[in-house]
Amino acid sequence: MLMTYGGGSIKKMGLYDRAVSAIKDAGLELFELSGIEPNPRIGSVRKGVQMCKEHNIDVLLAVGGGSTIDATKIMAPIERALPIVSILTLAATGSEMDTAAVISNPETNDKIGRLDPNMLPKASFLDPSITFSVSPYQTACGSADILSHLFEVYFTMDQDLYMLDCFMEGLMKTVIRFAPIAMREPDNYEARANLMWASSWAINGFVNGGKRKAWSCHPMEHELSAFYDITHGLGLAILTPRWMEYCLEETTVSKYVQFGTNVFGIDPTLPPMDIAHQAIDKLSDFLFNTLQLKRTFPEVGIDRTHFAVMAKKTVGGGTMPGFKPLQQADVEKIFEMCMK
Amino acid sequence: MLMTYGGGSIKKMGLYDRAVSAIKDAGLELFELSGIEPNPRIGSVRKGVQMCKEHNIDVLLAVGGGSTIDATKIMAPIERALPIVSILTLAATGSEMDTAAVISNPETNDKIGRLDPNMLPKASFLDPSITFSVSPYQTACGSADILSHLFEVYFTMDQDLYMLDCFMEGLMKTVIRFAPIAMREPDNYEARANLMWASSWAINGFVNGGKRKAWSCHPMEHELSAFYDITHGLGLAILTPRWMEYCLEETTVSKYVQFGTNVFGIDPTLPPMDIAHQAIDKLSDFLFNTLQLKRTFPEVGIDRTHFAVMAKKTVGGGTMPGFKPLQQADVEKIFEMCMK
Repeated sequence: MLMTYGGGSIKKMGLYDRAVSAIKDAGLELFELSGIEPNPRIGSVRKGVQMCKEHNIDVLLAVGGGSTIDATKIMAPIERALPIVSILTLAATGSEMDTAAVISNPETNDKIGRLDPNMLPKASFLDPSITFSVSPYQTACGSADILSHLFEVYFTMDQDLYMLDCFMEGLMKTVIRFAPIAMREPDNYEARANLMWASSWAINGFVNGGKRKAWSCHPMEHELSAFYDITHGLGLAILTPRWMEYCLEETTVSKYVQFGTNVFGIDPTLPPMDIAHQAIDKLSDFLFNTLQLKRTFPEVGIDRTHFAVMAKKTVGGGTMPGFKPLQQADVEKIFEMCMK
Repeated sequence: MLMTYGGGSIKKMGLYDRAVSAIKDAGLELFELSGIEPNPRIGSVRKGVQMCKEHNIDVLLAVGGGSTIDATKIMAPIERALPIVSILTLAATGSEMDTAAVISNPETNDKIGRLDPNMLPKASFLDPSITFSVSPYQTACGSADILSHLFEVYFTMDQDLYMLDCFMEGLMKTVIRFAPIAMREPDNYEARANLMWASSWAINGFVNGGKRKAWSCHPMEHELSAFYDITHGLGLAILTPRWMEYCLEETTVSKYVQFGTNVFGIDPTLPPMDIAHQAIDKLSDFLFNTLQLKRTFPEVGIDRTHFAVMAKKTVGGGTMPGFKPLQQADVEKIFEMCMK
């Protein structure tokens, strides 16, 4: 077995010792690969693949959040589709229950996603108490990530199943209710449990109704974190309300009305455009005041230097489909909206 | 393969021919057991088991609603845990995606539930267009059944996961929105799809959060349909608002407030008891006016003759746990409330 993890946090929290002794008790041979980065890099993956070959590894155990799990996922299908098991330490990416992984190549400033059914973990251990030690800041970033996964699927005019919209609204309400509690009371089991379970269900494919949806904020954010190595959830938090504002028009307003009335309880008798603006304001208030995330690019060290190239890479040189199809100029405008 | 079904409805709708030719095309040997009753009886199960032995059956294909699927489920574990496949024709019981089955013995007026992981169908085909031919009355009964499955889990003071409460509220809103549409427009794919998917998710165990919950209305209704052979969903519809009224008190009112505000959009600033009564009224209005189900026992041919014995069988001679623990006298009072 190859156990993968990031920095020392799993040692501080005692999880490392618990995992190692359980593995030894089971009589399994254990190898370790530590130091997997936030925004995990291709170098770590290559190291892991090398170890799998050298030591004839037959199962991968990822202990960590989305970065560790994603890097481990990428190792698996390269090396004869090794089975992956994960112990989740951060409610955010949903990587513990999906078939996706994202990896960075710092040499080329590329951050690339991959989908492969072989990367779905065979089992993931979700123990909310393991996330008691997650800092308020990381809790906030993780919560913004969960919300973004939901928005990427929810905001579409190509409605599928009302039932799934209700589920998504329920997941949004869950995050909005419990993220601040988990920040104030890190040991609140109920809050941690709700966030952890919501992180998986936001992205395990169920709310998609079986369809592949075109995402918008994630592709934009991947360029930010490829160029600036900022925390994924923070980048999403800054982008999301601006993207919502940019996509708001007469043809899309009904979706904002549904969101605003069902998630934030905004008075449904108000004019639709008013509801939409109130909904975006309430979301901004949640992200930047309640979760205390930074609001603008300058606050996180991003200036206009790479806007053009990041926007171009976001749309792949053409049009990015999604809630509102976006071209390079659109993405640049959304980036510009994040400047103040 | 043994194909099981009820009366002739699957022949009328052409489903029988489609299934038979698909089975023959696949080169499988086909045996048939038809005539499975609504409130399926132990006699049908015995016939099925006999056929499995005689013909060395290796897979069971249930084509129908909960009654056909349930009877087939009971055959399976008796005969070497045969795999079950189902083609669902009615959105209601959720039997297509759970491990439970209910069967009647008309000689003893017993209606008995059974849980067995071997009874979980290996695959179920849910094609909403197959339910286009379901009558408005059966659509109404099925919808009342789905709602009851949700109420049995939702109404508890032993709160688990807020996220799951949100999912249940979403499922309730889905049924309340689409049942009347499916009654008015039987061919409305969106309505049928939402009801069909909701029927599975209301009872596949997910909303329970992994816990076994004590149910209340279903045990009461099983006695009604054991003694009077009425449609399960209709019995549930009559019982449910009375059960809610009977369980309403200061210690439980908060759950009714959550239900009333989130599902029916009742003004949350009203006094809690007012919200609770309004919620019950709105549910009654939905069941008896919108769904046009009969409101009282006398309207469906039930009188007081068997109240005592039905109540006694409901609670098994002791106390039935649940939202409010009920003894024989409590159940008799709830039955009495159904008289007018």
